Formats: sequence, C-alpha cells, structure tokens
Amino acid sequence: MVQLFQVVTVPEAWAKLWPHVEGVSGAIQRIPLVEALGRVLAQDVISPTDVPGFARSTVDGYAVKAKDTFGASESLPALITVTGEVLMGKAADKMLAPGEGVRISTGGMLPPGSDAAVMIEYTEELDSTTVTVLRPVAPGENVIQAGEDVRTGELVLPKGWQLRPQDLGVLAGVGVAEVRVAAQPKVGIISTGDEIIRPDQVPLPGQVRDINSYTLYGLVQECGGVGKLYRIIPDCFDELRQQVEEALAENDLVVISGGSSVGTRDATARVMEALGEPGVLIHGVSVRPGKPTILGMIGKKPVVGLPGHPVSAMVIFDLFIKPMLWHFQGLRRGKPEAAVRARVSCNVASGPGREDHVRVCLEDRMGKLWAVPVLGKAGLITTMVRADGIFRIPLDKEGVMEGEYVNVRLF
Amino acid sequence: MVQLFQVVTVPEAWAKLWPHVEGVSGAIQRIPLVEALGRVLAQDVISPTDVPGFARSTVDGYAVKAKDTFGASESLPALITVTGEVLMGKAADKMLAPGEGVRISTGGMLPPGSDAAVMIEYTEELDSTTVTVLRPVAPGENVIQAGEDVRTGELVLPKGWQLRPQDLGVLAGVGVAEVRVAAQPKVGIISTGDEIIRPDQVPLPGQVRDINSYTLYGLVQECGGVGKLYRIIPDCFDELRQQVEEALAENDLVVISGGSSVGTRDATARVMEALGEPGVLIHGVSVRPGKPTILGMIGKKPVVGLPGHPVSAMVIFDLFIKPMLWHFQGLRRGKPEAAVRARVSCNVASGPGREDHVRVCLEDRMGKLWAVPVLGKAGLITTMVRADGIFRIPLDKEGVMEGEYVNVRLF
Repeated sequence: MVQLFQVVTVPEAWAKLWPHVEGVSGAIQRIPLVEALGRVLAQDVISPTDVPGFARSTVDGYAVKAKDTFGASESLPALITVTGEVLMGKAADKMLAPGEGVRISTGGMLPPGSDAAVMIEYTEELDSTTVTVLRPVAPGENVIQAGEDVRTGELVLPKGWQLRPQDLGVLAGVGVAEVRVAAQPKVGIISTGDEIIRPDQVPLPGQVRDINSYTLYGLVQECGGVGKLYRIIPDCFDELRQQVEEALAENDLVVISGGSSVGTRDATARVMEALGEPGVLIHGVSVRPGKPTILGMIGKKPVVGLPGHPVSAMVIFDLFIKPMLWHFQGLRRGKPEAAVRARVSCNVASGPGREDHVRVCLEDRMGKLWAVPVLGKAGLITTMVRADGIFRIPLDKEGVMEGEYVNVRLF
Repeated sequence: MVQLFQVVTVPEAWAKLWPHVEGVSGAIQRIPLVEALGRVLAQDVISPTDVPGFARSTVDGYAVKAKDTFGASESLPALITVTGEVLMGKAADKMLAPGEGVRISTGGMLPPGSDAAVMIEYTEELDSTTVTVLRPVAPGENVIQAGEDVRTGELVLPKGWQLRPQDLGVLAGVGVAEVRVAAQPKVGIISTGDEIIRPDQVPLPGQVRDINSYTLYGLVQECGGVGKLYRIIPDCFDELRQQVEEALAENDLVVISGGSSVGTRDATARVMEALGEPGVLIHGVSVRPGKPTILGMIGKKPVVGLPGHPVSAMVIFDLFIKPMLWHFQGLRRGKPEAAVRARVSCNVASGPGREDHVRVCLEDRMGKLWAVPVLGKAGLITTMVRADGIFRIPLDKEGVMEGEYVNVRLF
C-alpha cells in the first residue's frame, strides 16, 4: 500500500527533493553555433585569440602618428604626407615614418608606426600626396586595439551561461563554430484520467479534452526541454505503470497529468511506488493552487504527478519542474524574467504555512500600475489566458493588503 | 549614381519606411498545436463548444441539491441518501430526487437535479447508503458550470495573439488540434566586406571573423523569423548584386551586414538602387550607435544595410527589423519584455535631434537599482555581452543626469 504522506511546504518539499536531484546532470552535445540560441554552455569558453587580431581604425580617414597632429587647428593645420592606402582585409605592413599617414577605412588595419586615426571630416586634401589635419588626435584615438574586444586566454563566456544573440556573435568572433551545450532535457508527458480525451476527439457527456498536456508541452519548451506526449491512460494501475515505465526509459523526467479524480491520484502514487526507489517523496504541497501534487524519483529520474486543475498544474510546474529542467542543463545565468512591481487592488487572504499564487491583470490607473486579481477557480484555464501575470504570497505572510506592492511575474 | 541622402531621425525614417511596409503581410500556415508555441495566430479562434460541456465537481464528495443541506451543522447534520456514484468520464444521467446524493470525484459530472457538491471532509458515512452533511453548501458551490471556462461562440483568442503555454492549453480544450498561424518570416543574411572571414577560418593580418551574421541570426529567431546565412561577399558590386538578388527571391527581408568600410557601404547602397523600386529610402539615421544605416525596399521586400559595428547593428535591428518582422506576422499582443527602472550612475550626454542607446550593467546599491553605463566602443561585441540591458535617450533629450530614472530593457 501507498504510505500516508503529510502535506509539506514548498521549502520542505525542496529539502526532500534536492538531495535526489542535486547530482543529476544532463547529457552534453556539440552543436553548430547557429543552432545554439537559448542553449546553455556546457563549458567555459576561453578565447584562443585576440579580437581583433590587430589594431583597427573605427573611422574613415588617415592612420597617423598622433604626435604629428599635436597642436593642429584650423588656423594652424598639421601637414601629413599620404604614402598610400590600407586595403580592407590586407595586412598594413609598411612602417609609417614621422609626418606620414595612410588612407584608411573603418575596420582597416593600422600600419606599424601609426597609433591613431584622423577622421576624414577633419582633414583637407591639398594635393594627391598631402593632407592637412585640422584637429589633433590622441594616441589610440579612433582605434580599436588588438585584443580590445577579447584577449587571448580570456574567459569569453562561462559554463552555465544561456546563449543570447550577442553571445553567438562573440563566439563567432573568437572562432567557435561549434559549441558544447547541455542537451535539451527530455520530458515524457502522460495524460491520465477516465474522463480525458484528445483535442481532436468530440467529448461525450462526462468527458473533457486534455488541456494540461498541451500547456505542459509549451512550458517544457520554454525551459529548454523537449516534451513528448504519450497516449491518454485510463485510471488503471497496470496500463499507467506500463506507460510510465516506457516514458522513464525514453526521458529524463516524467510528468503524469490530466485527470483530477481520486482514482487518477491513487493510480499515480501507486505506480510511482511500484516502479523503483526512492518512489514517492512528497504527496501534497501546501501551495494554493496546487496542493494535490505528488513528487517522486525513480532512480535518477523525477516523476511528478501534477494536480488536475490547469492553473494548479502551471503553478507546480513553475515551482518544481522548471527549476529541475534548468538544473539538468546546468543553468547559472539565464534570460531575465519579465516582471513589474504593482499595487494590489484589494485585500487577498492567504493562510499561514501556505503560499499562494495569485493571477492578476494589470491596470494603469492614473499612471500607477495596479494588480487586479483574476477571479475564477483553478480549474479554469481561461483565468491564466486572461491574466497578465502572477504574484506570490510567501509562506510567512497571511495575505496582502489593498495598496501593498507585489512583484508580478508577467506572461 | 547613388543620390545623396540626408541623415534622418528614427521617427522620420519610419515615416518614410512605413508606407512601403504597412501593406506587407506574411503567409499563413496551418500547423499542429504542439508546434505552435510562440507563433502568432492568423485568425480569431471562436469556440465551437462549451468547456466544460457539463457541470463538474471541483471536489471529492457528494453531488447534492444545495437546499437539502441548508442549516446543516455538526450538531444538526443533514441526512443524504446515497443512491450511487458518478463514474469519471461517464454521463451522470439519473435524476436526483430531494434528499438524495451521489458519490462524485473531482472532475465528475453533476447528475441532473443536483446543483452543488459537498466536500467529503464535511460528511460522515452512517451506513452504505446514508451520509450526514456537517456544513451547508450554496447552489453552485464546488461546481464548475457548463461553459464556465469557455462558452460556445466566445472569442477564445484573437488574431495577432502570440501563443503561450496556457494558450495551447485552452486551444486543446476547445478542440483546436491544428492552428492557423503566421508563417515565420524568412530573413536572408548576407555578410559583406573584404576583411570578413567565416568563424571556422583563421584570420590573417587585416582580417576579422564575421560576428554580426551570427548575432543577427539569433535576433531573427527571437522575433519569430528564420534566418538564412549566405556566403561572405567581398566589396564588389557585381557579386553583391547577384547574392542580394538570390536572397530576395528566397526571403521576405534581406539584411546586408558585416563590414564597416566605405567600400561596403557604397556597394550596399548601389546594389539596392540597382535592384528595383523604390530602392534606397534612408541613408543614415541619427541614432547612436547606428548612424551608417541604409534602409530600402525592393518591391515589397525590405533590404537593410546594417552598420558594421556589432553594437550598432543590434540597435538598428531592434529599431527597424524587429518591428518589421512582427508586423509581417500580424503581431498585436506579444511576449512582455523584461525591463526594469533604474537610476543612472553618471551623467550621459546626448545630442539634440539624435537618440542614444546606452548599454548598462545593473548594480544593487543598498537596495536601490543603478544603471551603470558600459564603457566601450560600438565596435566591441563584448560590451553587449557584459551589459545587462540598454536604455534609450529619446530625440528631444540632450542627455540624462546622474540619479535620473531610466527604463532598462534587459537581455
């Protein structure tokens, strides 16, 4: 028989879960740079090279010795002898003598002996080999030095970094055409419940279409994972056991989702107990909505029995599954979350020892942002569709008062 | 010859560009629901059905007539005759008589004649056919009514809505297994410049690896588009013309990127003029960084000659290409952006008639958030890697003062 579990708080649940999850890490793979957006680096990237490899001009004009321009002005310009032109993409190897300059374009290589670039706007061509310089430049002015962007041996990006567009750019710049990243965690999504049917089926009285599997599939994708939808299983121990076993073999984490009935919950817990150690770790979490949650592990793979109500399932995903999926990927620095501070439009009660997640719409009232709680049961997915975000009332608070500031996570 | 253009402000640039872009919209495609995360709905979705299709219990307990429990208390409980059980997924069609109740699980269908559900916690079983109810329930209590989540004929989600996980859920719930969405805009990315080489090549003196194409590829992906990288073209009119022509045939928008030299800029503008009407619309935008931008259209397809400096290219992408890509997809309500208000740590000057985009790192100083400008030239991609975000100094401001609040877009 399934042992009896006590409802625990979210921190208590994590305290029980973490020792089993901490040592689990996902696979690593090598992928082309262009496929790497949003992926998490599996190793430090150290630059094997200086970027740029040479001093470059940041302007169109003339590469010069800065000291040849010192004191130059419109009334007393400096004279520079133009000895040639730097071709883009070519080495500028002719040493500049005092009083000499060469034509250069933005991005061109500064020739040896030059240490600054004069903008063409501040020069006048006297004849084909002489220009006047109307303003002085300092050494290094209008120049990107060799290694100024990235130095050889420098840490370009650390392990655990989620790659953004500019990160792809810098990796390309240091010559990383393939990148070692965490594999995308695979998540098996099993829908269960005698009343649940597929979206393409027509419900008979008593039946409802599967909502949660599709929401979960999207949530998994947002956390860098890849979902796999399995078929819908009735409230039957043997069928569910067989399906969970198959899903465990094919995935890094298995979510059992769908129905909300006693039968579904019983079958889920019994299957988790039957399939291996440590089995069920947590049965019931004091979070609203989301209480009837079952968390367990089969070996190194978490199995989560999600509550049947769509809002509860989303809250529990956010509290437990999302952190696990990022942990498997070794994430240390990810995308910033969209969030705003807003004042709550009415009193919202919570209970001591329980955390509440409150769906809200945002309203601008005379320039101030207000979070207006969305009324509606946790069984209604449309409350999450209508809401602009969600805020949390932590364990130790018994509610928030009208006008109090809260942090609303936007979606 | 290429006509001479005046540098214009960002609003002026949009005023010139918009009439050419306004009428352009991308293709529409039908895709499976599970592939639709982040995509933009191409039509209003009206529900063909009620969700749920019947009144459901939100608790485990008994479906009853509420009035049979009125006045019930622990000292004077109501007596209910249990006539059976609602099976999950089955029609509950036996009419409830006064004084009767049936066992029901969360999600079960309320039988005709019942209008509420009593939680099992507030009942006691007297014998196999009788329970006492210790608390009254109101009509509708612990029940989700038929159509309470979605009503037949209701607008579930509007055209132009970017799909989130919960939106996939509600679409599944109303039976939408395939969804009509905007096709992903195709963006051809052409790198040009005599000094530019591929990331997998080893630079000789004067050469640098292509950074911008990879950053752009990621930015396009973030805007729901699909990038295609073409080969690197030298500063040669004929080769560039041929490549842009090919890219125009295969894409909805073409970006010419890479080099920063005069030669690259000239070739880009000349190619845009040569390929068709209206050709170059804007040559130079008063934004820092990002001034040497070329915006044009060949027929209904925008062609953008981006500045060569990586930071400039990103700023211009954000100001012009991103809005175009979302416009092609018909986006009206997208993902919220991550942003924070922070105080600027030092005076930052701007010029009148120019907008500035300032890279910053965020620092928490005694509980207050400060935006610390990242020093470094626009040619350094690492300034965008190190920065936490960017803020804008609009046209009409000549700078921001130390301590002033700004809105930092996070990345």
